[in-house]
Amino acid sequence: APRKAAPIENTLPCSLEELYKGTTKKMKISREIADASGKTLPVEEILTIEIKPGWKKGTKITFPEKGNEQPNVIPADLVFIIDEKPHSTFTREGNDLVMTKKISLVEALTGCTINITTLDGRNLAITVSNVIHPDYEEVVPREGMPIPKDPSKKGNLRIKFNIKFPTRLTAEQKSGIKKLLG
Amino acid sequence: APRKAAPIENTLPCSLEELYKGTTKKMKISREIADASGKTLPVEEILTIEIKPGWKKGTKITFPEKGNEQPNVIPADLVFIIDEKPHSTFTREGNDLVMTKKISLVEALTGCTINITTLDGRNLAITVSNVIHPDYEEVVPREGMPIPKDPSKKGNLRIKFNIKFPTRLTAEQKSGIKKLLG
Repeated sequence: APRKAAPIENTLPCSLEELYKGTTKKMKISREIADASGKTLPVEEILTIEIKPGWKKGTKITFPEKGNEQPNVIPADLVFIIDEKPHSTFTREGNDLVMTKKISLVEALTGCTINITTLDGRNLAITVSNVIHPDYEEVVPREGMPIPKDPSKKGNLRIKFNIKFPTRLTAEQKSGIKKLLG
Repeated sequence: APRKAAPIENTLPCSLEELYKGTTKKMKISREIADASGKTLPVEEILTIEIKPGWKKGTKITFPEKGNEQPNVIPADLVFIIDEKPHSTFTREGNDLVMTKKISLVEALTGCTINITTLDGRNLAITVSNVIHPDYEEVVPREGMPIPKDPSKKGNLRIKFNIKFPTRLTAEQKSGIKKLLG
């Protein structure tokens, strides 16, 4: 029986936006095909990959026997493995999106509104009126990644905070703070 | 040639105080010894372990051939492996000691004095007048663990801070903070 060539694996980097909305990628590949006499000739083919909303890094898409044709060998499977490009605002944790927002100590104590552009381009304004302490996390339900089995459901968006403290305070500011909060 | 029995390993838990100051541990062991005819009889022995200042978890002390005596077998080595008991104030990171001090936001902003009892029982009062932000670390030189090769040298003590924010603020407090720090 003819042996089968080992699968050929390729990484397919996708932006978080593409994995959020889903997309179609067309990949041009070059391969050798063999005619009846065993002579090989190069051909180009276009493969279409449908990326579903919510697909995760590591998802594999296999095109069976799309490797080069050689006599007495079953052509290799061509495998694409989804990878996730880093995003400037969000990181992904399972189905959740996580972001860190830098705010001033005054904003942390007196409240703030965070403007976010979602991965599908909507603008969200999230108002936090709680006191924001260093471990505070604001959870925005259903603004995470779509869940592949049911893209109508989504994970959460979790906003963490990096509170920028003043580098120094005057004696008057210090005594004022003691009076106000002490 | 007689084979040698596999080493017998025991954990020797030490407090951070013992590893800081050094100590002597006496271990009572029971073993079988054999007389000329091959008859074995139980004996008790006291082994003395000198723990040097700065010894680390994982340090091994070997007592050669202190296992049971059996005919035609070289007795096993008896090995003690230093382990570090958890401490209520300090954790060890290499030669440094690390502690986390809980302070109020007012203390973080206006300054505070931290009272520490060292592992050898001295009292330190560390005054911090800088603004303490969530990632702030106060380094106290040479108040860490002794360095075994030269116990006159020591690592540092690193103080981290857990800043307790007020859970809520009144409208007056918020406007006061905006005026003071805004």
